[in-house]
This record gives sequence, structure tokens and C-alpha cells, in this order.
Amino acid sequence: MSIRIGIMGYGNIGRAVECAAKQSDDLEVVAVFTRRDPSTVSILTPGAKVYKADDAEKMADLIDVMIMCGGSATDLPVQTPALAKTFCIVDSFDTHARIPEHFANVDSAAKAAGTLAAISVGWDPGLFSIERMYSSAILPLGKDYTFWGRGVSQGHSDAIRRVEGVLDARQYTVPVPEAVDAVRSGSNPDLTTRQKHTRECFVVAKDGADKARIEKEIKEMPNYFADYDTTVTFITMEELKRDHNGIPHGGRVIRTGATGWDNENKAIIEYSLKLDSNPEFTSSVLVAYARAVYRLNKEGKTGCVTVLDVPPAYLSPKSGEELRKTLL
Amino acid sequence: MSIRIGIMGYGNIGRAVECAAKQSDDLEVVAVFTRRDPSTVSILTPGAKVYKADDAEKMADLIDVMIMCGGSATDLPVQTPALAKTFCIVDSFDTHARIPEHFANVDSAAKAAGTLAAISVGWDPGLFSIERMYSSAILPLGKDYTFWGRGVSQGHSDAIRRVEGVLDARQYTVPVPEAVDAVRSGSNPDLTTRQKHTRECFVVAKDGADKARIEKEIKEMPNYFADYDTTVTFITMEELKRDHNGIPHGGRVIRTGATGWDNENKAIIEYSLKLDSNPEFTSSVLVAYARAVYRLNKEGKTGCVTVLDVPPAYLSPKSGEELRKTLL
Repeated sequence: MSIRIGIMGYGNIGRAVECAAKQSDDLEVVAVFTRRDPSTVSILTPGAKVYKADDAEKMADLIDVMIMCGGSATDLPVQTPALAKTFCIVDSFDTHARIPEHFANVDSAAKAAGTLAAISVGWDPGLFSIERMYSSAILPLGKDYTFWGRGVSQGHSDAIRRVEGVLDARQYTVPVPEAVDAVRSGSNPDLTTRQKHTRECFVVAKDGADKARIEKEIKEMPNYFADYDTTVTFITMEELKRDHNGIPHGGRVIRTGATGWDNENKAIIEYSLKLDSNPEFTSSVLVAYARAVYRLNKEGKTGCVTVLDVPPAYLSPKSGEELRKTLL
Repeated sequence: MSIRIGIMGYGNIGRAVECAAKQSDDLEVVAVFTRRDPSTVSILTPGAKVYKADDAEKMADLIDVMIMCGGSATDLPVQTPALAKTFCIVDSFDTHARIPEHFANVDSAAKAAGTLAAISVGWDPGLFSIERMYSSAILPLGKDYTFWGRGVSQGHSDAIRRVEGVLDARQYTVPVPEAVDAVRSGSNPDLTTRQKHTRECFVVAKDGADKARIEKEIKEMPNYFADYDTTVTFITMEELKRDHNGIPHGGRVIRTGATGWDNENKAIIEYSLKLDSNPEFTSSVLVAYARAVYRLNKEGKTGCVTVLDVPPAYLSPKSGEELRKTLL
């Protein structure tokens, strides 16, 4: 029998969960929950049904794992602890600074209910965290570097859209090639924010808007752009739709460390992702962890976990015996 | 109190375990076991003692985890199951085809004794297996590629040394750059053995030896060289010692997969290692898993495991709370 998946929230990530689940025979999306009127929401999976978000709690018998596809700012801090009272859960909470608080809230709810919840699943936090974990444990005398991009940052694109006179925008985060090369050389450079990434903004301005003012406002925006070398390119709506329609992303985690009695030898570990679709890949990770959460909970594990707590083999539908034979 | 490590077998790997353990405050090498006369073996760690291999079984109270540093051909298949009756164990058994058999032998010995043994720890099998595991679970519609090198293959170097007229030799396994690029492009190429790697041999011949015959014998050697484009370069013993003294290695695992409802988008995951010292890095992995084995056994886990069964967090001396706060 398949593991029955519920999707809470139906945006880019929710839709991509359907795509990811379709690739595995042992997973089945059975329900999508939305705050919109369900009759207006059209989903991809034949046989799955759309329900009101508020009705989710009544459906404990229908769903094995609920995948939370809301936002980290306001949705997940409330929804994940609430629904952990009823369901095993995977969420993609990605506000790094608030993870300890979110973990504690979800852990107490899930422990009381006998459910298991994996939080902060995705690629960063998520797969990148796993790589930082392994490589720092294996090379304790070393240094971690994380580069993001080239890829679209939704948050930065939104920030540009809030500038007066902007119709639409797309922001790419771009790692500085010289910085990546310096890290790979093993020289352990100290890099400032500005030295690591640049930001490329493609902006559609309203007719007659003051482009010089828009560019200045973007480049001086604190937190988002002021600390970076930022370029602003004005394009037409047609160009935006033609050339910037996708949501690609990627990045790399590099650890450079030393081995040997006198730390005389270098070792470099590099992990990189190159993704045509950021939400689709993120959802592929969420879905693999839904399998793991289901299996761990069946074995009696409850409470909150992160990717650091889940043995790799639990992500695979294959048996331990098959994995050892074919993949180890 | 530190985790007390024993080292069984004192060659390149055993010595490198001492180097790796030195980097962590919570680990301490207390004993080295050798088949040689202990009085003739000089080790690196102040305070550690050298014993005869046969005396190991008497020392259950002295050692928390025994790291097996013998060879996979004849040592580990016998030693690991035998010593798992007394100790928690980490070994680096790397004969892929015989892993299921080794696992079964070690599992029954360890379960009966209440010990825990992690087998096939290192980077391949080991870290590369972990990467194949994660990436195949996350991108089920995809293809794995593993490239090794540029690095010294001990087995191939030994094979050359057995050719008549050869004094010494060093063999480098080298990935073909065009093959790596083709894989990275996401085109999912089918690659033959010859297309993936070349083999570079640096050979010191005896005075008066027939170099043409040596070169021919190397290039035609079945299993080792016949399926590869192999180059043979004759050098002097001085050149060998000056230019080929290290044991560098490395490699990469790449998975190319598809995402999207109609598999219309590509995703590429790449993991690579670049190591000045292969045995030192391997031992850094062994030592991190010694920590994990110790902790898992304290929690009651017994039997045999591989890297696929161990949650990442167990490799680190840091608490779950600290890891979530600083690294996730």
C-alpha cells in the first residue's frame, strides 16, 4: 500500500510536491488543502481531492504524512505545531535564526500526539546542512563556505517589486567566480559578503517612472542589496516573460580542511546543486523525507527531527539489503 | 572522558587514524595492535601502547571502539567478525561485491555479543555511497556517475610492480575531462570504461630491462589495464621519489535527474573530493564513525551497520541543539 500524502498549501511548492510524488510508486498524493475556495483550485494528481485548510484536522485516517507548503514567515510557525497534533509532518521552515524555537514548539506538540515531524527540509536548510555536518565532523580543522546561485531569489525579487514605479522584477544571486576559486585552492580566505556574491536585478518599470531613482533605491536597500555589488537592468515585460520565466537555482558547499600529524595535507570536499527548478527540487527532497518520517514513526519514533537526525537509508524505498548490494 | 580507540593493524591507515584522532578532544588512541614484534613498532601518539594483535581480545575493558586497519582481501573478512565478539568496531572493507556476505558475518557476531560494528566506512564505499543514496532517493528518475581520481591506485601500482623487470611504479587513475563535462551537461551519456578513465603509469625499470616488453605487458594486463587507454612513462628512482611520493586521490559522484510533471526540468547533484592524502582522509572518516558507533551502542544499538544506517548528527561531538543552532 502506498504512503498517503497530504499537501497543506498549494503554491509553487505544493504543486511541485505532486510532481515529485508522481515519480515514486510507494507514494500517493491523496489530498490538497487550501485557504482558497477548493472549487476554484485545479490540481495535477488524478484522484486526489481538494479540501479547505480548516478541514484538515478531521482527516487523520486519510493521510499518513502531511507536507507543509506554506511560508516560513507566518504560516509554518503556526501550522506545523498545530497539525503535528494530528499528522506526521514534513516542513521546509527556512528561517535559520528561528529554527531552535520552531523545533521546540513542534517537538512538544508531536511528542504529546505520538507523531513525528521533520522540519527545515529542503536544500538549505536541508541537503546543504547535511553536507556541512558530514564534512565538519570528518575535517574538524577546516572551514565551511556556502555559495548560492546563480539563481532566482524570491525574497529579493519581492523586495524590488515593492519599490515605487516597479511593475515586476527578477533578482539573481550570483557567486563570484574568483571567490569560489580562492576557496577551492584551499587557501582558506576570509571573504566579506560583497566578495562572495553579486546581485543582478532585471526590472520592468512603469511607463514614465524615474529609472535613476528606482536603481538608486534598489542598490541602497539595507539588508537586501546595500552590502552587495548590485546591477540593475531595465527590461520590458515581454523580455521578462521570455527570458526570466523559470525559477532556477543552485549553489555549493565547500569545506577545506587539513589532515596529517602536523596538519600538513589539504582535503577539499565540495557539494553542488544545479537546478532548473528550485521549487521542484525542494519538493523532491520533501517527498523523500515524507517516506523517512512515515517509516521512522512506524518504528515508534516521535517528536521533532531535522535532516541531521535521519539515517540516509530511510529516504529510499529500497531495503537495506538491496542498498548494500547495489549502491554501497 | 574520551572515547578510547584501538587500532588493529599499523600501516598507512593505522598511522593516519592516529593523525585523525589527534584533531578531536573527545577521542583518544590508547592502543595499537600489530602482527609484528611490538618492540619494533614506533607509533605517533604519546601515551598509547603497542601490543601483539593476538592479545587484543583480552583488552575489552581498555578500548571503546576498535578501528580495523587491515586489508579487505584476507584480513578484514576474518578479523572483523572475530573481534566484533569483544569490541565495537569500525572497518573499511571495500570489496564491493563481497559486502553482503561480510555484513551477514559481522552482524551475527556483533548481535550475539551486544556490540555494534560499522563496516565499509571510508569514501568509496562510504561518503560516495551516502551521496549516491541521498541523490538517488531525491531524484529517482536519474542516473549516477562515479569518477575516481586524479589519484594513486595502490592496487594498480602493485600490479605493475609484479611485472618482470620493474623495480617500482606509481599508477594514477585519471577521469576523462570530456566525460565529466558530458555528464555535467545533463545529457545522461552512456559511457564505457575506456571513455570514463585513463591510467597513467610511472615505472622504474631495472637496468637493462626490456622496456618495450614491460610497456606491452602493462597495457595488455586484463582487468587492470586492458580496458583503458594507458600511458607508460619510464622514470628514474630519483624522479619517482621526488615527484610521486604522495598518495593523493579524489573523485566525484554526479547524479543527473529530472523534475516536473513531465520530467521537463533537469537537476544535477555533484559531490567531489580532492585529497592530498588518501589514507589520512579515509582515516578521518573512520574516526568520525568510531564516535558514532560508540554513541549508538551506548543507546542500545547492536549488530552491523553501514554509513547508510547512521544519522549524520552522530558523527559530530556537538549536541543536537548546538548543531541546529549553528549548522542547520
